[in-house]
Amino acid sequence: MENGTKKWGGGVHGQDLETPSNITIKGILSLLMASIDTNDKRRVISLGMGDPSAYSCFHTTAVAEDAVVDTLSSQKFNGYAPTVGLPQTRTAIAEYLSCNLPYKLSPDDVYVTAGCTQAIDVALSILAHPAANILLPRPGFPIYELCAAFRQLDVRHFDLLPEKGWEVDLHAIEALADNNTVAMVIINPGNPCGNVYSYQHLNKIAETAKKLKILVIADEVYGHLAFGAKPFVPMGVFGSVVPVLTLGSLSKRWIVPGWRLGWFVTSDPTSVFKNPQIVERIKKYFDICGAPATFIQAAVPRILEQTQVSFFMKTINILKQTSDICCDRIKEIPCITYPYKPEGSMVVMVKLNLSLLKDISDDIDFCFKLAKEESVIILPGQAVGLKNWLRITFAIEPSSLEEALGRVKSFCKMHSNQQNRYQATNNQPLN
Amino acid sequence: MENGTKKWGGGVHGQDLETPSNITIKGILSLLMASIDTNDKRRVISLGMGDPSAYSCFHTTAVAEDAVVDTLSSQKFNGYAPTVGLPQTRTAIAEYLSCNLPYKLSPDDVYVTAGCTQAIDVALSILAHPAANILLPRPGFPIYELCAAFRQLDVRHFDLLPEKGWEVDLHAIEALADNNTVAMVIINPGNPCGNVYSYQHLNKIAETAKKLKILVIADEVYGHLAFGAKPFVPMGVFGSVVPVLTLGSLSKRWIVPGWRLGWFVTSDPTSVFKNPQIVERIKKYFDICGAPATFIQAAVPRILEQTQVSFFMKTINILKQTSDICCDRIKEIPCITYPYKPEGSMVVMVKLNLSLLKDISDDIDFCFKLAKEESVIILPGQAVGLKNWLRITFAIEPSSLEEALGRVKSFCKMHSNQQNRYQATNNQPLN
Repeated sequence: MENGTKKWGGGVHGQDLETPSNITIKGILSLLMASIDTNDKRRVISLGMGDPSAYSCFHTTAVAEDAVVDTLSSQKFNGYAPTVGLPQTRTAIAEYLSCNLPYKLSPDDVYVTAGCTQAIDVALSILAHPAANILLPRPGFPIYELCAAFRQLDVRHFDLLPEKGWEVDLHAIEALADNNTVAMVIINPGNPCGNVYSYQHLNKIAETAKKLKILVIADEVYGHLAFGAKPFVPMGVFGSVVPVLTLGSLSKRWIVPGWRLGWFVTSDPTSVFKNPQIVERIKKYFDICGAPATFIQAAVPRILEQTQVSFFMKTINILKQTSDICCDRIKEIPCITYPYKPEGSMVVMVKLNLSLLKDISDDIDFCFKLAKEESVIILPGQAVGLKNWLRITFAIEPSSLEEALGRVKSFCKMHSNQQNRYQATNNQPLN
Repeated sequence: MENGTKKWGGGVHGQDLETPSNITIKGILSLLMASIDTNDKRRVISLGMGDPSAYSCFHTTAVAEDAVVDTLSSQKFNGYAPTVGLPQTRTAIAEYLSCNLPYKLSPDDVYVTAGCTQAIDVALSILAHPAANILLPRPGFPIYELCAAFRQLDVRHFDLLPEKGWEVDLHAIEALADNNTVAMVIINPGNPCGNVYSYQHLNKIAETAKKLKILVIADEVYGHLAFGAKPFVPMGVFGSVVPVLTLGSLSKRWIVPGWRLGWFVTSDPTSVFKNPQIVERIKKYFDICGAPATFIQAAVPRILEQTQVSFFMKTINILKQTSDICCDRIKEIPCITYPYKPEGSMVVMVKLNLSLLKDISDDIDFCFKLAKEESVIILPGQAVGLKNWLRITFAIEPSSLEEALGRVKSFCKMHSNQQNRYQATNNQPLN
């Protein structure tokens, strides 16, 4: 099989199977995990992923678990669902999202996906064509870049501005877009920045996209997880200004990322997406996708209707508390600073000041040494597009967070080039 | 938004968003369902889809349902799984499949997918490159064609030979393959033909693929559902002759298609797929896919280990019974014949003799009129690549099957051009 091997190992007759070279979050986290010192008897603490489901304080509501047990036990939902989703699930999601919109979504606007990841793939795949390009935020969420690479969609990056609360650089958008630009992506509440966009900023984004005749893909997987001064405003509010594709899931607000229940929604009261050609393309794409389990879909109406506000408030309160802890501890570490206090999601971007460290070459080096020496996992900023920054997940149990950041402080002290002058300095955030 | 509409409705600057024009099974079945006469008080009976889960005689085993309820209730599996699947799930599937192989699969050979549909997409996507083509069976399963169209993979069809028990036309394979052919697909037990390939024929397929230096994608979603003389032999048995990608799922053998738990397996003892470049490409592709729910994955080890043989035997016995009913009833209908008695899966292909019908133009016309007049749904052969054939699913409750085929008989009698000579004719099958 020597030739056979070559044929699709090294590529067919010299043409390589092009594997995107992107860094993925899960890829780098598993490398970090592999570099943990097994002789360190302390437990490993990961501030790497937005999945707090293992911590009891972030446990999902019994409403959700009971609903799924019941639909499974009913024996009515072992069969296939329509590839676009069960009708009752589409209806429930349409109603849930419409509560925060100035118009009513139709069940036909909603496509049920295997988590928000699949919703991202659907959005990029249906928009891809040979000349197309898409505008992605930097820092961002690398699944977009990876997906665009697999779907042959060109990527152009616009900056999020730390000094402006990670707002979109709208001038950059105008400079980047051309006639082949199909869409821009915003993630709100923000991953990896922990920001929440104001109504005014979202309005400006909508007007800019309208002017450029591009649509907006609004990744709202962290929707409603806002604990600062600004409320969460869905991008769909501006659906009559510019067509919006809203991506979301149960994963974060219900803390069940492993259930893989997401949605792809055409938030589009002017019915651009009702064009039969587009609807057919979306529907056909869903025919080749694996959907979420039918019985989980069937539980969604009850989950959306019956979850108590108190459950949501509890999550918001813990996130507020842990984000405060996170910022307070970071202020004690001179070599890392945060430009903007997080107001939403579960993560924050902090800047690494390498000039204060004696033997750390960059963010990746920092994270690998930290994993090895302190059994703490943090995501290097390069994984999300910003070198010499770090993404810290604060959505973990408070005492674990304290312990992890205590270890980061020790680590930074150990590697400081200012050993004698090391002290708890107050790093002033911008807000 | 007039221009915006055009931009990604009618294509960007004249370039259409190319939507594959393929017929899909679910698409055509829903059109058929929509043409049912609502004044017909009889219940609708569908012989259209391979999903018997709604019938109590095809109910899944309590072992499977209990296992999922327990993993869900344990509250340990609400979080993300690795995108390639939980380690214990990969191990369990490797062991389950290895039972029927002359070598042992490693957990690393197994990637957990959202049903077999996603496994198909993964296989075609990782093999796709600009010049590549793939060989698909005719008749076949149209998701392959649709997926190839979305992934820009050229399709070449080889015939399955009804007069040879729907064996692969191996001469056609040799004539079709060129240096850009990456793989051929076989579906065994067969969908839509209900055939089961012998060890000898699979061996010939392997030798042909080896000679042509292409790999074999073996769709074994109906694996083990063989009730005729020939046992089910997995293609992976020939993995040392030619590298095999085995696609499968719990869907059919456990009758839980809605659970969306499938697998993509490199059945490849010579480790062609262990090439780091290929492994990286597969892993990255899984990073953009939605996976099956973590708690369903976590239930797989118990499901695979503890399901009783008696459950499998019960299913096999019912399928044997319903396939017999199906063939007996078809013998009473002069205008349809089956070239080969089904020995596996849940479906059979039957040939339509239009010369015996007075006002039916083709298989699609037949199926739409049948739906409208008799509230029975059957898939037209064109949906699987054979005009003027029909695909009949016999995996339904026996009395419903009898009733549905009785209605088909009435329908054919009503549309016969030989009204006076109409009688129960014995159509001799070839086996």
